[in-house]
Amino acid sequence: MPKISHTAEIMPESAIRMLTPYADQAKADGIKVYHLNIGAPDIKSPASAAEAVAGFKFDHLPYSNSAGTYALRRAIIEKYYKPNGIDFELEDLLVTVAGSEALTMVFQAACDPGDEVLIMEPFYCNYNTFSLMNRVKIVAVHTDIRDGFRLPSAEVIEKHITSRTKAILICNPSNPTGTLYTKKDLLALGEICRRHDIFLISDEAYREFCYTSEPYFSAMQIPGMQQNVILVDSASKRYNLCGARIGCIISHNRDVIKLVTKIAQARLCPPVLGQVATYGALSADKEYFAAVRKEYIARRDFTIKALNAIPGVYSPTPEGAFYTVAELPVKNASDFCKWLLTDFHPGGETVMVTPAEPFYKTKGAGRNQVRIAYVLEVPELKKALKILADGLKVYNS
Amino acid sequence: MPKISHTAEIMPESAIRMLTPYADQAKADGIKVYHLNIGAPDIKSPASAAEAVAGFKFDHLPYSNSAGTYALRRAIIEKYYKPNGIDFELEDLLVTVAGSEALTMVFQAACDPGDEVLIMEPFYCNYNTFSLMNRVKIVAVHTDIRDGFRLPSAEVIEKHITSRTKAILICNPSNPTGTLYTKKDLLALGEICRRHDIFLISDEAYREFCYTSEPYFSAMQIPGMQQNVILVDSASKRYNLCGARIGCIISHNRDVIKLVTKIAQARLCPPVLGQVATYGALSADKEYFAAVRKEYIARRDFTIKALNAIPGVYSPTPEGAFYTVAELPVKNASDFCKWLLTDFHPGGETVMVTPAEPFYKTKGAGRNQVRIAYVLEVPELKKALKILADGLKVYNS
Repeated sequence: MPKISHTAEIMPESAIRMLTPYADQAKADGIKVYHLNIGAPDIKSPASAAEAVAGFKFDHLPYSNSAGTYALRRAIIEKYYKPNGIDFELEDLLVTVAGSEALTMVFQAACDPGDEVLIMEPFYCNYNTFSLMNRVKIVAVHTDIRDGFRLPSAEVIEKHITSRTKAILICNPSNPTGTLYTKKDLLALGEICRRHDIFLISDEAYREFCYTSEPYFSAMQIPGMQQNVILVDSASKRYNLCGARIGCIISHNRDVIKLVTKIAQARLCPPVLGQVATYGALSADKEYFAAVRKEYIARRDFTIKALNAIPGVYSPTPEGAFYTVAELPVKNASDFCKWLLTDFHPGGETVMVTPAEPFYKTKGAGRNQVRIAYVLEVPELKKALKILADGLKVYNS
Repeated sequence: MPKISHTAEIMPESAIRMLTPYADQAKADGIKVYHLNIGAPDIKSPASAAEAVAGFKFDHLPYSNSAGTYALRRAIIEKYYKPNGIDFELEDLLVTVAGSEALTMVFQAACDPGDEVLIMEPFYCNYNTFSLMNRVKIVAVHTDIRDGFRLPSAEVIEKHITSRTKAILICNPSNPTGTLYTKKDLLALGEICRRHDIFLISDEAYREFCYTSEPYFSAMQIPGMQQNVILVDSASKRYNLCGARIGCIISHNRDVIKLVTKIAQARLCPPVLGQVATYGALSADKEYFAAVRKEYIARRDFTIKALNAIPGVYSPTPEGAFYTVAELPVKNASDFCKWLLTDFHPGGETVMVTPAEPFYKTKGAGRNQVRIAYVLEVPELKKALKILADGLKVYNS
């Protein structure tokens, strides 16, 4: 029997899906599971997304341009970025198969095998997979829950930079912590990247989900960083079109765009129907985002308050995205999360949250933490967090 | 300015798109270009594809299962493979972002960096990109135009096998040659793979485009090869849904499927709307394929006859796909193809074909050859091939 590659040994299990079999079993047993484990919100997409798809008649479906349809690229610039004060040319933009492909391509463009990328931990676990597949090494810069996962000082960050460091990758606001980096943070990161002549890769998939009164400050807005910044963006969360699989790479660095375009040509084109849906969604007005933001602020406020009211639980207050990382009064959060699914079903219901440990690279870090996605309506969140609180009481007695 | 990766230097330009700027210029100058350069046919998809999309109402678009929706996977098995005499379980199947992603994942599953894969040349150039991105080495086994690009003897193939060889990859029928491997060929390849304990990767994207009276013999049907065979399939050509970006990997080897599933989880899911379209297309009946086949046989017969009637041109008769590789009476086909676009516009029209050299790995091989995609209706093909014939006359005088 032929042997598969060693990738099998180095590739981690998906942290987010690790507990899925237990959830499936619970559901098969008739248990209702509140899903706070995955960033799959219940929010409606702009109606214009489905309308665009319904209005798209085809008798066959040819490839689009490898960089995405002209119409979609123009709309991304004119309807989304320009009104947000960010200006760039059509040639600075490549449409990708969602943020996932964008990140893979950016790793490939910025790094050779053996190169290093700095990422603040805890971080989105799939960064591990994208880097592993390209034999790129992630170097984690630790951030602390008690400090709200704020950006460490330049001094601390620079200690992690070696001759193999090619980039700093941030997710802003962050999945899993919800931390929003400020303009000051971004300028500091820009300084570091310029000083060391490395890329700043900014994953801004959650940029519409910010709950402060400050306007969002994008990495694209750092002065004098045109050659260093690579933006990764996605329609998945912004318009709740996760299944459309549309994202993009934006950079003023033409070498980067030229290389990712070459890589993109090999996979021919991004999904055409997803491009149609995203093109439609781009008609969303400010009111759409304002309503979504209002809803998430209510959910966040409720969630954080409810969490911190549970004895022994601590969660900082995230300023963006729709996640928070909370500390629980347990030794091993993974065991507890599993136990909720297998053993704790008050009134035939339970709750699913994600162990935070796989979001850390430092061994043992975050073992007593979970990531909670507040993607349900407040009355549902209330029931779910009550189960969590009761579960902790029973588990610890 | 930060340096991009060395991938930029090793990554070839897309052979198929190399001449696109010249074609774009010609079109901007008002010239009509007959496109025989790219596998983008004019054939209609089954009407059920667009109907499925039109009937798919959504108010938001969540992720599907990473392996594809249950409905699509079941339909692939029940509606396509079972009626074709190929039986496997739901767990043997992973839906991918078209054949492109399937091939990338299969390279990652079968090979570590530095491993080798044997491929008959000329071969689909994007195999180069997929292998390069994973630092896998393609070892070309030469096949000859005068021999109709038939499979070489086991002895010749085995000469290319080293301790690093992990797989033989075939495209059957072949893009770019249209060569269809017989049952005997497949059994011989099976023998070789078993003997050397390596994978047989079979790209069967064009399997419905076969013009012999024999039933298609799939690599999945080679007896005793369950652990060795990895099938790569795609909806792109079969249903003319290139833009849907849906393909799949099929293998009875559970280690392979387990690993590609892990890789697939990191990119979350294949495009959901493309899955809907493909699910719809799977209702296509035998009459759909029979009509398409009939049309392509007429196009092929016309094309091959017309080509061989041009003095100094030679094309074997392909038995599958919708391509042929033809030898032209020129030194450098690439120069000639470019000249057609820039300088030869009889009656304000010209023709675009693809130089075949980039489909070869052996240096200098195929320099006087072109790949022709017979993807237009016969009257259009007639005009296009007339321009090619006249062009050769002028070019050589």
